[in-house]
Amino acid sequence: MRWQFPGGLRLASPSMAGFDGDGQLLEINGPRLLQRLWDLAEIGPIPGGGNNRLALTDADKEGRDLVVTWMRDLGLDVSIDTIGNVVAVQTDVGEGPPVMMGSHIDTVATGGKYDGNLGVLTALEVIETAIESGVELDRPLAAAFFTNEEGSRFPPDMMGSLCYTGGLTVEEAMSTTDADGKSVGDELDRIGYRGPMPCPGPAPYAFVELHIEQGPVLERDGMRIGAVTGVQGISWTEVNITGQSNHAGTTPMSMRRDAGLAAGELVVAVRRIADEMGGTQVGTVGALRLHPDLVNVVAARAKLIVDLRNTDDDDLQSAERRLLAETKRIAESEEVEIDTKWVARFEPVVFDPRVVELVESTASALGLSVRRMPSGAGHDAQILAEVCPAGMVFVPSVKGISHNPAEFTEPDDLVAGANVLLNTVVALARGHLS
Amino acid sequence: MRWQFPGGLRLASPSMAGFDGDGQLLEINGPRLLQRLWDLAEIGPIPGGGNNRLALTDADKEGRDLVVTWMRDLGLDVSIDTIGNVVAVQTDVGEGPPVMMGSHIDTVATGGKYDGNLGVLTALEVIETAIESGVELDRPLAAAFFTNEEGSRFPPDMMGSLCYTGGLTVEEAMSTTDADGKSVGDELDRIGYRGPMPCPGPAPYAFVELHIEQGPVLERDGMRIGAVTGVQGISWTEVNITGQSNHAGTTPMSMRRDAGLAAGELVVAVRRIADEMGGTQVGTVGALRLHPDLVNVVAARAKLIVDLRNTDDDDLQSAERRLLAETKRIAESEEVEIDTKWVARFEPVVFDPRVVELVESTASALGLSVRRMPSGAGHDAQILAEVCPAGMVFVPSVKGISHNPAEFTEPDDLVAGANVLLNTVVALARGHLS
Repeated sequence: MRWQFPGGLRLASPSMAGFDGDGQLLEINGPRLLQRLWDLAEIGPIPGGGNNRLALTDADKEGRDLVVTWMRDLGLDVSIDTIGNVVAVQTDVGEGPPVMMGSHIDTVATGGKYDGNLGVLTALEVIETAIESGVELDRPLAAAFFTNEEGSRFPPDMMGSLCYTGGLTVEEAMSTTDADGKSVGDELDRIGYRGPMPCPGPAPYAFVELHIEQGPVLERDGMRIGAVTGVQGISWTEVNITGQSNHAGTTPMSMRRDAGLAAGELVVAVRRIADEMGGTQVGTVGALRLHPDLVNVVAARAKLIVDLRNTDDDDLQSAERRLLAETKRIAESEEVEIDTKWVARFEPVVFDPRVVELVESTASALGLSVRRMPSGAGHDAQILAEVCPAGMVFVPSVKGISHNPAEFTEPDDLVAGANVLLNTVVALARGHLS
Repeated sequence: MRWQFPGGLRLASPSMAGFDGDGQLLEINGPRLLQRLWDLAEIGPIPGGGNNRLALTDADKEGRDLVVTWMRDLGLDVSIDTIGNVVAVQTDVGEGPPVMMGSHIDTVATGGKYDGNLGVLTALEVIETAIESGVELDRPLAAAFFTNEEGSRFPPDMMGSLCYTGGLTVEEAMSTTDADGKSVGDELDRIGYRGPMPCPGPAPYAFVELHIEQGPVLERDGMRIGAVTGVQGISWTEVNITGQSNHAGTTPMSMRRDAGLAAGELVVAVRRIADEMGGTQVGTVGALRLHPDLVNVVAARAKLIVDLRNTDDDDLQSAERRLLAETKRIAESEEVEIDTKWVARFEPVVFDPRVVELVESTASALGLSVRRMPSGAGHDAQILAEVCPAGMVFVPSVKGISHNPAEFTEPDDLVAGANVLLNTVVALARGHLS
């Protein structure tokens, strides 16, 4: 099937957001949502209460099987495409492309319970609540999970949603290999998730993703809900520095070509770029290796990856130019060679302002404090935004911790976010974008 | 046996250095020295022309066996002590403690042909030349190689000479384990080099070590010989930085506690300390690790080791104080915890000025350009300096490269250094220190 994309959309009445047939806001079943979260978290457990369900592993397969079972239990039409994306759509509800919710259930190796899983399992809870409530919808709801959002085992991240929207060919994705040389295609076959549906898939009417913030801003500001305005552009620059290996005791400082010193200066420069630019600009060097990495040897080589992000692409390009200027300056002063190359780049994504407005007004209607904010992390919703109106709902992450077993969001906040998602998508499915 | 230490020494006549019975300077057999170097280098070869004979491995045993065979072929009395140091002494020559030459034949994993080996094999060549020349000596010559000078497999470095002079107990050395948990004692037994002679061993009359510079100074200055005045003090400080792991995209710069940034600042600070202090002060961060070392995660932890060296202990302590002040400053500004601990510390060693003078005058008498210089690297001679007058002869290292298969010294320089060693020890063995 290929749903017809509805063309130009217009938000008719944000104030009508989420009201059911009787003008009441709907409420999800909190304990049922939490039970599904805990049940899924029992698959691939790691010490500290987190999960390791790297994409296309046995644990990922087991998680997929469980979620597909739940999808079928809700009477949804479950389809699997050639890259393993799973889409479950309501049947006999309304017509046309569905309002889709979703996220991913793969994790990083040291993942928490919430990242991705919350968006998928809340999508099921929203559909179950909608069914139980008897609310009348003009178009069906859908719940999806996309393959390999994390990209920890197979680059790039957001692989499944990229294939779904045509941003990456299935052939390219299939041939990607992990560190052991196993390919996406072979691993999909092995776990039985190379499905029959073609990629790219049909565009939904709209797409909304609930996700934990994975940052500290909502908690710091005492806010319950984030109405996500877009996703920061991401620029990853791999920097390879070549100096001269020398004895740390016998080489006068003036005769050194120290790749380690150059790397240290670049780390400091990245912080300076972010501080001086301000705004949404962030910069990080989280990955850094010296060679030969010996106490008493001036490093011959250093390799690091600079992570720059900004919500504005012009500003992001400005940060990239400043980074290159810093590498040039450091290369000259330490007489080292510095090669740079982009290893990843995503332009900033701006979510559909009507969806952002709907999320914000829905939260307010539910009596929840809400702020507009960009996402610093990449999400499937930014990929779906290429083919349909899209948006996201954030809930707070305690201490901003994510990709860590200590990842935690208060149950009340999980339920609050689920209720925002529920009433947002019900509004969308009742025709408020037209 | 325990040679009696001769007490107060005095250089009677440096101008008489090295003259044989007929007043002529002696000359070693260059091709014979080079042949032994190449023969030993055939054991434990690695790509690029270097050697891997880590201490107490099969390759180390094979190297030891070869050198012991050569020692016995020269008619020397070979003794092995409990830590595996091998000392070969002339019999029926003079009396009293010998003038000892030596170094080590273990290498780092990526070692060259010359580091250590040159000093040991030249000692054999010097003894062979002395025998052939018929020069009359008042005391015997000795050639030694000490166990595990590099310390690459088992810390600390200079283990064998430390045990020989009583700076480290044999019990402590024996129980040291490598990364696989194998102990020095077990490995000594395995390769058959736990000998019967006790440690500490008898003090020689004097000790002189020929070694490659392992630095670029002689080559830069166009000098053939270094008369080594002493060894820089070495201070290794392990620095453990604990920050907060966070998402690189979602965490505002102002809320970060970035262990990687703190590490980068410390790398830059170490360079600044060395530059501002000047003189012989050097500072290096060659070993640095981030955790979790992921592109998009603000580092939770960083571990690095700072290598500080100075020929003056007051200055070295000043550098250490500045390092601690920098860690305190960085810890406060980035709100990270920084723990520091010494993992190694050797005070500067000053070689006996009479030996330094003798090396210098001998080189001049041979028509070789010579400069006094400190050693930036640690050597067995600095340990022997605790128990007897000691000194060293340096020859140039091309481009200062060492601990690398590309380590190279011109054959002419090897022979020149060997001739300096020969005539220096002959002078010492003919009573010029009394």
